[in-house]
Amino acid sequence: MTDQPPALEQKLAKILKQLEQHQVDLYLVPSVDEHLNEMVPDDKQRLKAITGFSGSAGTAVICRSGKHQLFVDSRYHLQAAQEAPNAFFEIQKLGLRDVPTVEQWLTEAEKKQGSLKVGFDPFTISPKTYRLYQKCLTSKASQLSPMLPNLVDQVWENRPEARCQPFYLLDDSWTGETAASKLKRIREKMRENGVQALVLSKLDEIAWVTNLRGSDIARNPVFEAYCIIELEQATCFCLADAPETVQAYLKDWFQFKPYSAYQNSLQSLSNLKIWLDPASTTMGTYLALQKTKSPQEVAAFQYEKVNPIVLFKALKNPVEIKQIRKAHHHAACAKIRSFVRLAHHLEQNESVSEKGYAEMLYEEYAREEGFVDLSFDTIAGFADNGAIVHYSDPSPNKKLESGHMLLVDSGIQIAGGTTDDTRTIAIGNPTEKHQRLYTKVLQSHIRLAMQIFPEGTKGSALDAVARSALWNSGLDYGHGTGHGVGAFLNVHEGPHSISPLSHAMDFQPGMIVSNEPGYYETDWGGIRLENLYVVVLLENMPPHPGGKSWLHFESLTWIPFDHHLIDSHQLHADELQWLNEYHQQVWQEICPYLQGADLEWLERACKPISA
Amino acid sequence: MTDQPPALEQKLAKILKQLEQHQVDLYLVPSVDEHLNEMVPDDKQRLKAITGFSGSAGTAVICRSGKHQLFVDSRYHLQAAQEAPNAFFEIQKLGLRDVPTVEQWLTEAEKKQGSLKVGFDPFTISPKTYRLYQKCLTSKASQLSPMLPNLVDQVWENRPEARCQPFYLLDDSWTGETAASKLKRIREKMRENGVQALVLSKLDEIAWVTNLRGSDIARNPVFEAYCIIELEQATCFCLADAPETVQAYLKDWFQFKPYSAYQNSLQSLSNLKIWLDPASTTMGTYLALQKTKSPQEVAAFQYEKVNPIVLFKALKNPVEIKQIRKAHHHAACAKIRSFVRLAHHLEQNESVSEKGYAEMLYEEYAREEGFVDLSFDTIAGFADNGAIVHYSDPSPNKKLESGHMLLVDSGIQIAGGTTDDTRTIAIGNPTEKHQRLYTKVLQSHIRLAMQIFPEGTKGSALDAVARSALWNSGLDYGHGTGHGVGAFLNVHEGPHSISPLSHAMDFQPGMIVSNEPGYYETDWGGIRLENLYVVVLLENMPPHPGGKSWLHFESLTWIPFDHHLIDSHQLHADELQWLNEYHQQVWQEICPYLQGADLEWLERACKPISA
Repeated sequence: MTDQPPALEQKLAKILKQLEQHQVDLYLVPSVDEHLNEMVPDDKQRLKAITGFSGSAGTAVICRSGKHQLFVDSRYHLQAAQEAPNAFFEIQKLGLRDVPTVEQWLTEAEKKQGSLKVGFDPFTISPKTYRLYQKCLTSKASQLSPMLPNLVDQVWENRPEARCQPFYLLDDSWTGETAASKLKRIREKMRENGVQALVLSKLDEIAWVTNLRGSDIARNPVFEAYCIIELEQATCFCLADAPETVQAYLKDWFQFKPYSAYQNSLQSLSNLKIWLDPASTTMGTYLALQKTKSPQEVAAFQYEKVNPIVLFKALKNPVEIKQIRKAHHHAACAKIRSFVRLAHHLEQNESVSEKGYAEMLYEEYAREEGFVDLSFDTIAGFADNGAIVHYSDPSPNKKLESGHMLLVDSGIQIAGGTTDDTRTIAIGNPTEKHQRLYTKVLQSHIRLAMQIFPEGTKGSALDAVARSALWNSGLDYGHGTGHGVGAFLNVHEGPHSISPLSHAMDFQPGMIVSNEPGYYETDWGGIRLENLYVVVLLENMPPHPGGKSWLHFESLTWIPFDHHLIDSHQLHADELQWLNEYHQQVWQEICPYLQGADLEWLERACKPISA
Repeated sequence: MTDQPPALEQKLAKILKQLEQHQVDLYLVPSVDEHLNEMVPDDKQRLKAITGFSGSAGTAVICRSGKHQLFVDSRYHLQAAQEAPNAFFEIQKLGLRDVPTVEQWLTEAEKKQGSLKVGFDPFTISPKTYRLYQKCLTSKASQLSPMLPNLVDQVWENRPEARCQPFYLLDDSWTGETAASKLKRIREKMRENGVQALVLSKLDEIAWVTNLRGSDIARNPVFEAYCIIELEQATCFCLADAPETVQAYLKDWFQFKPYSAYQNSLQSLSNLKIWLDPASTTMGTYLALQKTKSPQEVAAFQYEKVNPIVLFKALKNPVEIKQIRKAHHHAACAKIRSFVRLAHHLEQNESVSEKGYAEMLYEEYAREEGFVDLSFDTIAGFADNGAIVHYSDPSPNKKLESGHMLLVDSGIQIAGGTTDDTRTIAIGNPTEKHQRLYTKVLQSHIRLAMQIFPEGTKGSALDAVARSALWNSGLDYGHGTGHGVGAFLNVHEGPHSISPLSHAMDFQPGMIVSNEPGYYETDWGGIRLENLYVVVLLENMPPHPGGKSWLHFESLTWIPFDHHLIDSHQLHADELQWLNEYHQQVWQEICPYLQGADLEWLERACKPISA
């Protein structure tokens, strides 16, 4: 439940008073928390607490003079306007013509006022963002003023408790590598780069290196912690007490300390050269490390570079891949059963809503052995709702009726793996337009899925492979084509991705990536077709002229594409062959796990499609 | 003719003496000249003068102790080893394993020696390169020491005279825009960026803004000059005296001064904020402008950014495009006639060498009205020579015999336009392998040629579109897919290109770009198929979801692809349709200009190919 305006007004007034006391003009409230989480725990949802807006991303600017500002991207234009009281907040709908970014707005505000003093909680801003804002302030009288503790926390009555759940150790038969071995590889990189300490704030990085998992955050099996890795020791600062079995098992490699000891512990690093990743820690850590240092000393003791865990974590080892494959079998079985159940209900003329279907799907997921959680809120968008790319709140009132499509984008956290897949299915008989556009998107998916490419290929190149067929029909989609996925970790993970802007990272064997082209038409519907793939070395190919290896994608996801929606004439022979081989393998992979009506449905769904 | 070792030895000895006098350890001799030309005039070929190596790109390092170094890329590994005397030079074959770049070599040399004093002529190094070298020298005792005049010039006996040819004005009916209008647009950008002067060193930029052309440099219709554009005046510093008619016509906009007055004139700019493009001027100009300034003043008076002419020049106006189309008709007619002549000779069992064919082609080009020059040295590589990507010295001894292919990459400078096209043709009956691989490359060409794409698309995306089909067969090529081309200017022109690394520049209407995928197999042969295309807005398309315009390519080149080498079964239906429509249009565009046997050949060459 969101706060009513009167409560909000009081909180805002208290913050304004503080700003006045400190002679600060503006106070930044980003959605980001101390660990730069994508999913923020309830007690860190400060943006929601101070604006009422409950979306996952945005930035508020509390202003001593003039209206407060709330910046949200296109996913949240509508929701922000509904949730944040209009009387207090001007909604800046990013992406619309003439709407400024936070940076542009700050630049303009400084111009108007001559100079600006901007307050912020340094633990909620990355150095990357801090530097962007710093560039906007050109007057010598302007400054970015770190303020601790967080102003929103101070005025937040009935603030939820931190979840602070116990955490647990993953077996090596799941991770394929001990924490000791991971530490060894990290320290090799540290020595190579001449640093003596590496500081970690991101929860999935800490989970990866410790082989620990938790449930402090919904949808992500992580625990709240910081970690400092030195050449001879490593310390984990955890919100919950580390269970004794965990402490005992890891005692030779990790010391466990309370979360609250982190900031003071940074002081003890003052004589070490420290590896900091400006994209994955916060200004809070930066400033604590710089406390007693001159700028020259800061330069000498700070080493800035993407931290080595980012790539280590992305390159899955064979044991992880084996576990991930199993996880995808579970996810596929559940989704297939949900489709069969849905078809059964509809055949009986029973009414099913978006929400009703999403609950059915959840039940099927929960039946799978080892199920832990969804990996993100299920998107079940029927008809026109399918056109809303991030439609994560299935409605109990939207009934699934003949003549439209249902888009289902969902995934799970399950012992050993994280899944994410999207299928779009016809409810009743599809129209020619449904088939034409579905097949176009399918062609786009297949082209990327069957693409062979040399090592060194970037995500922007693969993105063009996926879009080229759609572009030739005057079609496109407004989101990226693919993102990395963790190994029983976050469903969104770097450093690689497939998008027009993915120029930096080479695709490498062991990376997992989604392939999810789409088509969206307002008031009509949406189509998205998503599998996860793992990048694999391809043997027995002609030698590459530059001596490079050849790579290709192997599917992790085994769910049929809806043959009612496929117009095979649109597909090239090699594309249709890929599709039929895929369906044949779906049958082989999944049939051992299904029975009765579910198995019959699968058999029909996997039949070869003729040209 | 290259110098004999004794002469070289004397020159090197004289330079070493100078280095000793100035206490300098190394002296850099790059292939680049004062205008960062790709084609360097004879009197500026200092690298050749001091090493004997006549290739177009490389860097020599003359060393007071140890062997001199010559760094060359893969095009010149063989040639450098043949031409530069082994007794004096160690050839660093860039691209081979464990071969250092110039930067790596400098780093290593500094390490060995403790510190390095590196001499160079500041007018032969761009600030971009200078900064790269600067980064290699980390010791405080090390330094990059500008030395003027050029040491090679001082020891170069019988140095050729500068060509210093008269230059001439292009009519507005060719350029589509007066110099006055171009100056106005440039000055608008200067005001927007808050600068008072723009300094130009690149000859094609000066030719573009003045609408003048010359012939100081082989293959490029430019004249040697500098240019300074201020808000109220503009000055051209020319090697040759500006013809009176040119001076009279341009007198309201350009002052003409002798080339030698340039360096002193820079002093008069000392109170102006100056726009400098670090990629298109030299350290010589930078240092002259900084002479009397403190570092703070330099920062205040220097404005670094890509200069506005780079993009203005790339976006051809409708008049230019009309002229360029005409130029390509001429080039196509000549090339077609050369193929008919070649076929005739071979039918008569007359022996024709690579060089013999290249001369035939030149004769046909020279017959076209308005012909000025080739736009680059013709590549005519037969059989295995086709696999040498930059094979620009056709042999009189390599005879064209049945059972192989001939790769012909050529272009011309002709009144109003610059052309560049490549065809690979079968001599005698092609093998199945010739056909299979030719058709693969053709498919790659066609896929890119027919690709529709939204504005904002980068060259790296288009590169993947071209390569995707080849990649799926385990094939690739080691060069870029496309480069920009000037309007009766340089055959290589930025800022756009199509390559895996082209992430920076959006493709925009009016840009001209080559499409030239290839396949190369050592000891067998090479295939390259190149047309030039102009980027055009595509109307009557579905609206793009992001509100972007749709773009596509229109061909400028109208030369048939060799139907003997096409295996139509390998092509998708839409690709074959593109090919047949292309050939139909070749026929329509070119048939008015050919007669007799040439016309008959064209008719046969353009016949529809069935699936």
